[in-house]
Amino acid sequence: MNNFEFKNPTKIIFGKDSIEKLENEIPKDAKVLLLYGGGSIKKNGIYDQVKTALTKVEVIEFGGIPANPEYAVLMDALKVIKDENISYLLAVGGGSVIDGTKFLSAAALFKGDTPWDILSQNIRTEKGMPFGTVLTLPATGSEMNSGAVITRKETKEKLAMGGPGLFPEFSILDPQVITSIPRRQLVNGLTDAFTHVLEQYMTYSVGALLQDRFAESILQTIIEVAPKVLKDPTDYQAASNFMWSCTMALNGLIQKGVPNDWAVHAMGHELTALFGIDHARTLAVIAPSHYKYNFEAKKEKLAQYGERVWNITEGSMDDKAYAAIERTEAFFNELGIDTKLSDYTKDYEGTAEEISKRFTDRGWLGLGEHQSLSPDKVEKIVKMAY
Amino acid sequence: MNNFEFKNPTKIIFGKDSIEKLENEIPKDAKVLLLYGGGSIKKNGIYDQVKTALTKVEVIEFGGIPANPEYAVLMDALKVIKDENISYLLAVGGGSVIDGTKFLSAAALFKGDTPWDILSQNIRTEKGMPFGTVLTLPATGSEMNSGAVITRKETKEKLAMGGPGLFPEFSILDPQVITSIPRRQLVNGLTDAFTHVLEQYMTYSVGALLQDRFAESILQTIIEVAPKVLKDPTDYQAASNFMWSCTMALNGLIQKGVPNDWAVHAMGHELTALFGIDHARTLAVIAPSHYKYNFEAKKEKLAQYGERVWNITEGSMDDKAYAAIERTEAFFNELGIDTKLSDYTKDYEGTAEEISKRFTDRGWLGLGEHQSLSPDKVEKIVKMAY
Repeated sequence: MNNFEFKNPTKIIFGKDSIEKLENEIPKDAKVLLLYGGGSIKKNGIYDQVKTALTKVEVIEFGGIPANPEYAVLMDALKVIKDENISYLLAVGGGSVIDGTKFLSAAALFKGDTPWDILSQNIRTEKGMPFGTVLTLPATGSEMNSGAVITRKETKEKLAMGGPGLFPEFSILDPQVITSIPRRQLVNGLTDAFTHVLEQYMTYSVGALLQDRFAESILQTIIEVAPKVLKDPTDYQAASNFMWSCTMALNGLIQKGVPNDWAVHAMGHELTALFGIDHARTLAVIAPSHYKYNFEAKKEKLAQYGERVWNITEGSMDDKAYAAIERTEAFFNELGIDTKLSDYTKDYEGTAEEISKRFTDRGWLGLGEHQSLSPDKVEKIVKMAY
Repeated sequence: MNNFEFKNPTKIIFGKDSIEKLENEIPKDAKVLLLYGGGSIKKNGIYDQVKTALTKVEVIEFGGIPANPEYAVLMDALKVIKDENISYLLAVGGGSVIDGTKFLSAAALFKGDTPWDILSQNIRTEKGMPFGTVLTLPATGSEMNSGAVITRKETKEKLAMGGPGLFPEFSILDPQVITSIPRRQLVNGLTDAFTHVLEQYMTYSVGALLQDRFAESILQTIIEVAPKVLKDPTDYQAASNFMWSCTMALNGLIQKGVPNDWAVHAMGHELTALFGIDHARTLAVIAPSHYKYNFEAKKEKLAQYGERVWNITEGSMDDKAYAAIERTEAFFNELGIDTKLSDYTKDYEGTAEEISKRFTDRGWLGLGEHQSLSPDKVEKIVKMAY
């Protein structure tokens, strides 16, 4: 097991009708900016539940934060925070709204020239404006971690940020919100969380037996509940396990003491940037090729995953490892997710070269758990995913 | 899944040579009381490592906190805290030293008549004196939770306390400390952590699939590493998994959203009080009888545990459930732990009646996950454990 540090101070309030507990979590003297996305919360009743729970504090609203939260939109919100002397942020939404709120938490107290520096200069946020979240879409785990990804259309950039000051003070997780989520987004959430676990697990063994088993536990649970969630979103048992699995998939616990990969995300982000493909779907496109290309380095873990998660017992280690990749791709397909780039666009020729060039230009010369995935290897992996 | 709230702000610093990181965690202007137990830390080098890391702050020492931390001894330490204007506590030890430090953290800021009220009146501590820990004995999980158990010989009481103000600010876990722990205490630690998981898992299903799998993950890991830890305490891989498993077994995570039992602990505490039997060993005495007596209520979970943790595949659900209890008892025996009260004392006659009477006198009329274990049932269970 590798050395590690772990601290996660977010308070989770989980369960049926938990949104009504919101009023206990926000200081009585706070001036709150309520942030949300495209307005679905006004149709599904979540907005009303939030407003009902917030009668005792002053609330101003800012809606319209898009998927892949956009810097220009967030700068408008930052102006509201300053003009209105906002002291507390409340994100009501999925990963995009929460990520955008994290940027605002950092930017509101930032002393530098321009808040973009936080992203472009990779400045860690030690202290941000306090914020909480009401999660409306299980997927990213942003509700219980301190990271965010922000997009800037103007410069075609998508950059990460974070720091110990960016954990939500609280996050409210009511699995009943799942009943109002479109199937496409449920499928994306299942795929996103599943791939988050793989990025922290499908590397090489360092003897972290407990972390391996926790990772496998999340994968097994997602596999078990996925068809139930899709068949009947009102199945509370399935919904609650789905929601808690997404949070545990990326709240820091399973990544501690083990190598991490994250190359699938790095390549996937480019497919979103180039073709607008949903984030989760880009992961399902890249992952099978990535694991096939890096087969020798990952086959021990792939075989363990095949045995423990998919009950693959036949054949050699190589056989099990390969079968595990195929079973993973089949799982994505069963969810209704296409796993080839050509399923999403006819214009895929040249994509591999373009992504490889971008990584070279950025100096990303060695991705993955061994920092060995050079741009020429990235090119081969993306090509395999055509 | 049941509704739950979860928050655990303790910072874990885990790994080889992590004690040297101590100096970064304590405020520079702190006046520190260093608390420890019987003095083993002076023989095994941990004391020297701690002192080396603490050269920049003022440190006063208080040693001699016994196993089952004793109120009278802690009151002496409290006098030192007040006389010396201590502002920060540092526990260097196992669960007893850490639990004693939690009592002191609460007592140092307590405004009531006598600190005993914290225990006797079950007063939750919202804010305590800040403290950190250096763990020298994996077992209780106290290094990452907010609970403590304190003993008062004068009145023959052993009472629990806790509250959100009693999480350690940090805990340093260096698995290398295991090399200096006597075999008896290693065995106790393995048994204690294993039983902690069972208390939070061996109840009835509420469809909390992920919590079940996490609990099973810890049990599987303990089973896998136990023989290795005992055979060679310098096996770092085994030691690190043992240490992290003990912490995860009782840091709150696996108990959230599911029913909890804890009747084994309630009965076991009395065997320690009456006969001075090591805490962990009392759990191994009570658990098999408890599960046999409550077989109907717990058999679904027992069978799941048998299948997933012990690979018991033959027979009916009842067969698997019963075999799982027997396998658990055999596991304790393999560790060198006796599982009958008569293995520890010749004076066991009347014990069941005495414990039953004590529970009646305290008004403990319904223990366990169904609050249905009345004193007459407790009497039967303890008798089965003779």
